Parts: sequence; C-alpha cells; structure tokens
Amino acid sequence: MNNPLRAAARMADIAPFHVVELLTRARALEAQGRTIIHMEVGEPDFPTPVPMLEAASRFLRRGEVHYTPSLGIPELREAIAGFYETRYGLRVDPGRVVVTAGASGALLLALGALVDPGDEVLMADPGYPCNRHFVRCLGGLPKGIPVGSASAYQLTAEQLEAAWTPHTRAVLVASPANPTGTLITNGQMQRIAALVRQRGGALLVDEIYHGLTYGAEAMSALAFDDDAFVINSFSKYFGMTGWRLGWLVAPQACIRDIEKLAQNLFICPSAPAQYAALAGFQRDTLEILEARRAEFRNRRDFLLPALAGLGFAIHTRPEGAFYLYSEISALAPDSQEFAWRLLDEAGVATTPGLDFGTNRPEAHVRFAYTSPLSTLEEGVERLRRYLRG
Amino acid sequence: MNNPLRAAARMADIAPFHVVELLTRARALEAQGRTIIHMEVGEPDFPTPVPMLEAASRFLRRGEVHYTPSLGIPELREAIAGFYETRYGLRVDPGRVVVTAGASGALLLALGALVDPGDEVLMADPGYPCNRHFVRCLGGLPKGIPVGSASAYQLTAEQLEAAWTPHTRAVLVASPANPTGTLITNGQMQRIAALVRQRGGALLVDEIYHGLTYGAEAMSALAFDDDAFVINSFSKYFGMTGWRLGWLVAPQACIRDIEKLAQNLFICPSAPAQYAALAGFQRDTLEILEARRAEFRNRRDFLLPALAGLGFAIHTRPEGAFYLYSEISALAPDSQEFAWRLLDEAGVATTPGLDFGTNRPEAHVRFAYTSPLSTLEEGVERLRRYLRG
Repeated sequence: MNNPLRAAARMADIAPFHVVELLTRARALEAQGRTIIHMEVGEPDFPTPVPMLEAASRFLRRGEVHYTPSLGIPELREAIAGFYETRYGLRVDPGRVVVTAGASGALLLALGALVDPGDEVLMADPGYPCNRHFVRCLGGLPKGIPVGSASAYQLTAEQLEAAWTPHTRAVLVASPANPTGTLITNGQMQRIAALVRQRGGALLVDEIYHGLTYGAEAMSALAFDDDAFVINSFSKYFGMTGWRLGWLVAPQACIRDIEKLAQNLFICPSAPAQYAALAGFQRDTLEILEARRAEFRNRRDFLLPALAGLGFAIHTRPEGAFYLYSEISALAPDSQEFAWRLLDEAGVATTPGLDFGTNRPEAHVRFAYTSPLSTLEEGVERLRRYLRG
Repeated sequence: MNNPLRAAARMADIAPFHVVELLTRARALEAQGRTIIHMEVGEPDFPTPVPMLEAASRFLRRGEVHYTPSLGIPELREAIAGFYETRYGLRVDPGRVVVTAGASGALLLALGALVDPGDEVLMADPGYPCNRHFVRCLGGLPKGIPVGSASAYQLTAEQLEAAWTPHTRAVLVASPANPTGTLITNGQMQRIAALVRQRGGALLVDEIYHGLTYGAEAMSALAFDDDAFVINSFSKYFGMTGWRLGWLVAPQACIRDIEKLAQNLFICPSAPAQYAALAGFQRDTLEILEARRAEFRNRRDFLLPALAGLGFAIHTRPEGAFYLYSEISALAPDSQEFAWRLLDEAGVATTPGLDFGTNRPEAHVRFAYTSPLSTLEEGVERLRRYLRG
C-alpha cells in the first residue's frame, strides 16, 4: 500500500525560506526583551501611501467587493500602460498588461504559459530563490548560472550563449536584482535580448525593484525587446507588499493563453488591492514614493561605506533595490553560522547566502536597508563592537 | 529556430471559462439598453458584511500592510480552527490550518504537495472546471468520472474503486458541488474515505459551499477522515469573493511541505483580506450570513419548481450552493446554442454545460440563484414567455 501522505517528488527540490528560522529566533529574543536590528527583511518599512489606503477605503465603503475580470480591472491596466509612457516613454497596449496576485502570480502565469516539462530556464545564481521553484513546479529545469562581481552579479549574453542547449526555453533576469541590488546595463540588456531572440527563446525580466534605483532611472526591458515578458509589482516601490498585487506585460500573442491560466489558477487578483493601486499613479502618491526613494538612497549611501569599513566586501556598488550583498570570507568561514552569531551575540539579523542559490552561499550575507537610518546606524555600531570586540 | 512565443503543451488542454464570452455578449446587450437577467454568475450578489468591511478599514487605517506569515496570521488560523469546533464539534489544530489566496490557492498547494507528473486524480464530471486544470499544470492526469442523478451527481466509493489504477494518487470531491448543488451523504463520504485510505491515496474535499446548505448542516469530511485535505473559502458563505481568501486544512505531516510551497508560490495571502476575515466569525457577522442563507433557501424553493414547471429537468434536489443543474434535452438539442438564444431572445443569461466537463454538456445548463427573488421571478417569466411563445 502507498503512503497516502507521500509528498510529490518536487517537494525534495523545493527549499523553504531559510531566513524564516532566523527570524523566528529573532522574535524569540525580542520576546525575552532584547532589541534586534532587522537587516534581513526584504520588504520596505514604509506603510502603504495614504492616498492608496484612502482609495481602498472608499472602495470598501461601497461594500461590493466582487470578482473582477481575470486580467484585472480595465482602468488599472490602462493606468499601468500609461505609467510606461510617462516614466519610460514607451507605448504599451493596455491589452498586454495583466494584473496579478503579486509578482509571484505574474511569474506563475508567464512560466506556466511557456515552460514544458524538461525545458530549461536559465537564471543568475545568486538570485531570487522562488524563481527556480516556480520552474520546478511546472516540471521545468531551473539552471542557475554563477555570476560574480566581474559582471555586476548579472548574466551576460556570452554566459547565456555558452549555457544554451537544445532544451533551453527561456531566460529569467532581474534588474535591479535581489540579493545584489545591481542593474543590467542597457547595452547588456540589448545583447541579452538579441541572443535570446536569435536562439528562439523567451526572455523574462523581473523589474519589481524598478523605481528603487539611485542613479539614472533604469529603462524597462520593453525598450529593447517588445516581446519580453516583464514582471513588476506594487510591493516594493509602491509600498504594497501585504496586498499581493503585481503585473505582467506579455506579448499580445500570449495574452489569450495567460488569460486562460489566470481564470483557472486565480479567478482574479484582489479587488481591494486593485482599487488601492489605481491611486498609485497620482501625483500626490508619486511624491511620497519619490521621497522614499531618496530616503532609501541615503540609507545605501550610509550603509555601503560603513559596512565596507568593517570588512564586509561589497564588490559591486548596488544601484537599486534595498540590498547589499557582501562577501564575508575575511570575517568568517561560514555565513550561516556567522549570521546566527550576529543575531545572538550582536543582536543584528541578516540573511545568509543560502537563501539565494548554490554559488558560494557560505561566503555571503545580504543586508537589507529596510529600516530607518538611525536603526541602521545602531546596527553598524553593534557590528563594529562585535567584530572589534 | 524555435518560435519564442510557442505556448507550453499544457495550454492546449487548458480551457477558458466559456461563459465569459456569453457574459461579454450580455454586457454588450446591456450597453444597448436591454436589461439582462443574470443567472450565470457563480458569486453571491450580497456585499461583504459590514463588520468585515469595518475590520478591514480599521486595519488599513494603521497603514502597515506588510507581508504576513506564509500560512496566515496566527489569530485567523486559530479562528478558523475554532469554527470547526463551534460549527461541527470537531477539534482541529490551528497548526493544520493554512490560509490561502482563495480556494484556488488551497488547491494549488494541496495538489502541488501531493501530485507527481503522471499521477491520476479522480474527480466528478460535471464538476468545477478549474480542478482538472490545476492537476494538468502540475503534470498530473485529471480523470473525470461521469456522474448522474442516480448518485445525486456525486462520486461513489464503488465508482472510485472501479476507476482506481496503479497511477491513481488522489480523489477530489466537492460537497456541496458546483454545478449541481448536491451533497455527499455522511455514509457515502465515510465509504469514500475508507476506500481512498485502503488504496493509499489522498482525499481532497472541496467544502467551499459549506454554510450554504438548506437542509441539515453538512458535516465536514474531517469528521470521517482526519487525514483529508479540506479546502474552504471565504468567498461564498462569508461573501468575500473579490478579496481572494480561502483556507486548507491538511494533515500535520504535510504542513511543512505546504509551507515551503506557500512561501515560494505566494509569499503570503492578502493581509487586508485576512483582517477582514477575522471578523467573519463574530456573532453579528454570522447573523448576517445566516439571514443570507435563509434568503438563498427561499430563492431555491422558488426557482426549483418554477423551472421544473417550464420543462427544465432537475433530477436531484439541490441542497446547497446556489446552483440548479438542469437537463434541457426536452427543450433543445444543444445547450450552448440554447444558452445564446436564451440570452439574445429572452434576455436571460445561463451557463451552458460545456464549462463543467465532457459528460453530456450539450444536454445541460446551470442556473445560479445569485440574484434577488424579484429578479429570479422576472427571469422565470421571461423564460416562460420565450418557451411558450
């Protein structure tokens, strides 16, 4: 007889968020009365902007919180398309905009419409850990390619060419990237798009940290490849993590398939979240968001040299997101054990490299600057005392 | 060279919601000034209850709409567990309750944790159409088993035994069921659970229409099989369709795998929806919900004989949900064409059988009583004029 509770084979390949255990330990220490400096949390500390909260509350007062169209309410799809025009000068047909349950929903829809069992999807290692698990759930083969500081921790067209096999179906890149905060240059994105097109693959670009860049505005990959699948989110720049809302821009030819998948897998995205998001493109909201971007930039400008001064080796200056990915080989042999010691002994929580892939995770930790500057200063001071103590 | 936009093979097997086309046509007629009686819509017409809206608004006023734990906020998991105690007299450990992005999220998590490529999942035909597409997305083989009025349109242990093969991994039943509104008796559920256990399979039970039953309260399958995967939703009884919130009760041994999947595929369920749902178990909300249940019952008690009087053959008295599944062979040869004629010529929208499977869909339409009694009366009057005209 079978074991009725036998897990599917995929479960052996799907990793938990390791940092959750560390977070649980941090909460336990806090319950004992200790203060912990949280530099592990990958979400903005800012609340959802007031105009968006108010828009949601107005919608809720009507009480009619019903299913929406599977691809999202038309006015939000139009507002997102309009944002590509005002921010990037790009024309995007609203019919190509799919509103989703977070970037997570966008990834599932895009990969679900494209990836057959056995298909390879190329992606950077280190990278956002869920990417490979989405591919695995669909029976595809996620293929992490080690990236390092020589390419700003980003995949290059040359690497993709070398890694391409007859089974390669798609490439997934992220700019700005998690955990490194680095961008793909316009030139490199053009070369990647050309290579992927020439090989007959699909290009997926994670742009969920767009808006959180601290030099020149990042250009959307749609400028270089109108057939790219661009994934974005209201979580980070727009401050809507807990609402679970994102979007996907896909080629028109794929929209019908994506709609079928969206109907069956999600029915529709959250209605209150969609009405909140509608207010995200108003001038008053954008002013709040741009002030926050400046604050994130201040934090990075403080934290980057401060950590470097303590021996944390950050090889590529991060120009976006809210992460610093540091090599810690000079400080400790094992990032996992190091992170637990930092938590227990210095009261500073970080994310060890293990959550981002298999490319020397033991030599890296990720710092998130999702706390106010004063908190980051306290964190750095604690690290200083600990490392020099 | 490959076609970069080539769809994954699964897309050929994933059907759209056919009724959406009919709904689009209905909206076009309405735009022309015609009134349409909507008996196709599978969602309650009632707004979200005020105490739940107020709870969400209170939460939003704090502004801190952040990620929650992947399995849901502890107080909601406890409230759901408590509901099993008060409503069914069943003890359920809150640690086994997983809050999800609608019942859709619950289905994806349960099937994702259980079903390997090539595994068969047995289910009733007609049934909720998305079920087979979830299985297909995971590489499993959905195996619809024709059911009819002899078994109240429900699977029996005998049918499951006959259909079982070495590749059968799981059984998915629904009580009350969509599109038929029928229940599985306690005795039959016990026999199904025993058969599935004896064969070493997993039992998934869709209870999303629980609370919307009009005779004796339906018992949860957990009473008969503590290892069942029970899927439920805040959409129907609790009136929260647009919020996208549901839950899953799973065996303790599977919770760690389900948590890993939930982290990677969803990060977490919607935070505002969770705080709204917390108010769903309060006495004032439950009073509203029970009044609505009485109203649904009134509608069924009107619509069932009225349709029967017009020649719509409803072979099994539906005891739950808000659907009547009618054989229309005596009225027309093809339900699809019939439904379009009813819409165009009578101004009544229904859902043809095609959306529910391949078991004689051409001979059936589904009526939803998700409109006020006066609207249903008008619908019946229109049908009467049309059929007798």
